[in-house]
Amino acid sequence: MKHQEALDYVINKLEELSNYNYASSIIYWDLETGAPKEGIRRASTVLGFYSGESHKILTDQEFNKNLDLLLENLDSLDEINKKIMIEIKKDIDNIKKIPLEEYKKYSELISKAQPIWADAREKNDFSLFLPYLEKIIKYKQKYAEYKGYKEHPYDALLDDYEPGMTVKSLDIFFASLKKQLVPIILKINEKKDFISDKIIKVDYDIEKQKEFSVFAAKYLGFDFDRGLLKESAHPFSMGLNKYDVRMTTRYTIDDMQSSLFGTLHETGHSLYEQNIGEEIWETILGTGNSMGIHESQSRLYENLVGRSLEFWEPIYPKLQEAFPDVLSNVSLEEYHRAINKVEPSLIRVEADELTYSLHIMLRYEIEKELIEGKIKPCDLPKIWNERMKKYLGITPPNDSDGVLQDVHWAAGLFGYFPSYALGSANASQIMNTMKNKLDVDTLLKEGKLEAIKEYLGENIHKYGKLKDPNEIMEISTGETPNSKYYVDYLIEKYSRLYEI
Amino acid sequence: MKHQEALDYVINKLEELSNYNYASSIIYWDLETGAPKEGIRRASTVLGFYSGESHKILTDQEFNKNLDLLLENLDSLDEINKKIMIEIKKDIDNIKKIPLEEYKKYSELISKAQPIWADAREKNDFSLFLPYLEKIIKYKQKYAEYKGYKEHPYDALLDDYEPGMTVKSLDIFFASLKKQLVPIILKINEKKDFISDKIIKVDYDIEKQKEFSVFAAKYLGFDFDRGLLKESAHPFSMGLNKYDVRMTTRYTIDDMQSSLFGTLHETGHSLYEQNIGEEIWETILGTGNSMGIHESQSRLYENLVGRSLEFWEPIYPKLQEAFPDVLSNVSLEEYHRAINKVEPSLIRVEADELTYSLHIMLRYEIEKELIEGKIKPCDLPKIWNERMKKYLGITPPNDSDGVLQDVHWAAGLFGYFPSYALGSANASQIMNTMKNKLDVDTLLKEGKLEAIKEYLGENIHKYGKLKDPNEIMEISTGETPNSKYYVDYLIEKYSRLYEI
Repeated sequence: MKHQEALDYVINKLEELSNYNYASSIIYWDLETGAPKEGIRRASTVLGFYSGESHKILTDQEFNKNLDLLLENLDSLDEINKKIMIEIKKDIDNIKKIPLEEYKKYSELISKAQPIWADAREKNDFSLFLPYLEKIIKYKQKYAEYKGYKEHPYDALLDDYEPGMTVKSLDIFFASLKKQLVPIILKINEKKDFISDKIIKVDYDIEKQKEFSVFAAKYLGFDFDRGLLKESAHPFSMGLNKYDVRMTTRYTIDDMQSSLFGTLHETGHSLYEQNIGEEIWETILGTGNSMGIHESQSRLYENLVGRSLEFWEPIYPKLQEAFPDVLSNVSLEEYHRAINKVEPSLIRVEADELTYSLHIMLRYEIEKELIEGKIKPCDLPKIWNERMKKYLGITPPNDSDGVLQDVHWAAGLFGYFPSYALGSANASQIMNTMKNKLDVDTLLKEGKLEAIKEYLGENIHKYGKLKDPNEIMEISTGETPNSKYYVDYLIEKYSRLYEI
Repeated sequence: MKHQEALDYVINKLEELSNYNYASSIIYWDLETGAPKEGIRRASTVLGFYSGESHKILTDQEFNKNLDLLLENLDSLDEINKKIMIEIKKDIDNIKKIPLEEYKKYSELISKAQPIWADAREKNDFSLFLPYLEKIIKYKQKYAEYKGYKEHPYDALLDDYEPGMTVKSLDIFFASLKKQLVPIILKINEKKDFISDKIIKVDYDIEKQKEFSVFAAKYLGFDFDRGLLKESAHPFSMGLNKYDVRMTTRYTIDDMQSSLFGTLHETGHSLYEQNIGEEIWETILGTGNSMGIHESQSRLYENLVGRSLEFWEPIYPKLQEAFPDVLSNVSLEEYHRAINKVEPSLIRVEADELTYSLHIMLRYEIEKELIEGKIKPCDLPKIWNERMKKYLGITPPNDSDGVLQDVHWAAGLFGYFPSYALGSANASQIMNTMKNKLDVDTLLKEGKLEAIKEYLGENIHKYGKLKDPNEIMEISTGETPNSKYYVDYLIEKYSRLYEI
């Protein structure tokens, strides 16, 4: 059985790869959540070593020979192994296109750029970051050429996070958002004080915030025997595997919203990882799908569930009990309005649900034009501020709160931002179908979050990477991804809230 | 230059080995200080993989060929590389004796056994842990046979922690302790109430304990930019390298002693690791020497420094300030007596300085008899309790406070306990010489802990594994290790305290 031998060989090597990834992930987690400052000296060398070892496995001749044999005989494999081979081949094809030396140099550049960016942001000095950003963009342009694309170089970058996504589709997607959402945002701007956020912008005891975050994660269904909630400077989640899913949030005394909705968001990601199917959890398919699908789960829990009136009905008394000084005289309805106040703001991660996608649109346009060379990195502060004025009606007072606010570019994550908006759109589409099949509002009112988790587990989570993003959307909604449900949801919700 | 090629080859492979060890250590740290319960499923496989990879490197033919070439031409190497090759050869000789599959199985067993032990201890149910313990002991017996020994199988295990140590020497060592210390313990038992511990057995605010632990670690000289202090069920320290040294303690409201002296103890270990010489930190020599030397540093700080009157003189006011309810009306002298009260007790890590070595003697005897098969694991609770009665005059009310109290057996650390007693003896011997060279009492009274850290750094820490344990003792004391200074110190101190 030649195929069996090849299969054993490849599976065995993938297991090795997975062990390297596990080590890298734990080291990364450690660096983000507690490692001593000077620990980075050794940690960075070790991380470099493991990424090199992974590269070696994937480009190894013997490995590729065995993999190719399997790919020529795909029908001899079961569904899971078939998909594993296809996915690995895709990764290898991408990796092989980039000369190793260039990739190494780029990795070094990225690890240097991040502290520089942090420093530039702190000092509000874009010029410090500019030389690094220029190099990163140059690499990304080259990368797009190496990787190849059909119509637009930015397509090559988008494909890393959302397979098959193109500038062509995104231009339509964002045009539709702009056309339909800008009018309602303008109307709301005229009724600015219709909703008060005075109960939002006050102090909430940090210890109580922590307790409530843990409660909220459990309430959504997060299993603490198979996961952690810790603190870090930038919230993130990390699924090592379905039995070990970690997430972080951050607590600020005068910004309860940040820890609360941050926790709901990361819990959405984490439930996805915890509910991966038992038969794939130990394989490379045993993790969440594209960024757009992953982000749909976090946005669904953060916004469609977490900012709904029904969600808060059973648990608002508990929130009042935790923060009696602020909330004892505030009705459920008043609270619900306050957490949904719309206000154009400078910082993406603090934006409300409605204006959020305009922040993404701005980044999408800028990235696209940077990659095609239409705009120059040195002009970014000016361009950023002009477009903020144009789309959101406000001008950042400084670059720290403007073009320097996100870590993504310093981390080389060009093509990543659109996934946030796609995720929101997917979330609405998925929720729409779920509401046809389940009485979601009643379940929320009765605190039966378990039923929602099970539905998503059955229709999305369990598949991991066994299906492609579009297949997942087909399975769970009967349609390919589109912006219709997202726009409808936002218009309906905010027209009602602002009585427009 | 054939030698140069061989050297490059070996050093390169050792770097790889060090990367595997780094990953294993971080995974271990993670498991002990925060990983979710179910995370162990995957973590144990990964740990098994890395220990297998290390094994592969060390037993690889090409590697050994190059190493042997270097060993045949040791004079061509500098002092550091020479020692590295000798040390690695020793490790390889040991490892080659153990079949890889057995070693892998054992590594997995160990990582599974620890949470089981923790659970058994929490539930006070020895039977949960018994099947794991039986397997671990069976492996250790086999290991002793594989490794080989001259007189007693337990010698093979002792040698892992204290090279060259034997049952024969330890029987003499413990007999001498028993003979000279038991009489004074008996005399003190007759004067039980001569020292009151009423200020010890009361509640100390946990947050204040945490703050004081951090203060104490800093005061001794621990560099928090190059290390961490966290919490875990069983306190330990871990030197990843001199730039990343981690330690834990545990906080109990009615046992301030545990966190305070636990922190001083672990800080002693950690200062050792933080002060390794700059020229060896990235090599396999860049860590503490034998357990007996390592433990001398922790015991020195915990007891010889930490329980002295002089140490507390400058900082006792700070302690009073932290715990005014308990200490505001307690004099420094009264506090000093209280922290040195002698009382036979159940828990080793909470034992006073004088009875401590009897706890070790009990474990030494039991381990020795387990390995030679004289006693059976299932009889351990009974045997433990009988001997506690015999040596310390008390019987544990349950197994959690008896045979289940230590993590060591679950971690496979048979042969490790004697190092604690040897370490105490070394500590007294080192302190004796240090006092001849430095005015230690005055330094302590003036809060100049830096001078003590520097002395130990210069005479012990900086060497790492560059010298053998006996050489270290020769360098720092001019004598080979012996029990004389330890016994003298204890008899002098406690005769004075108890006015015997």
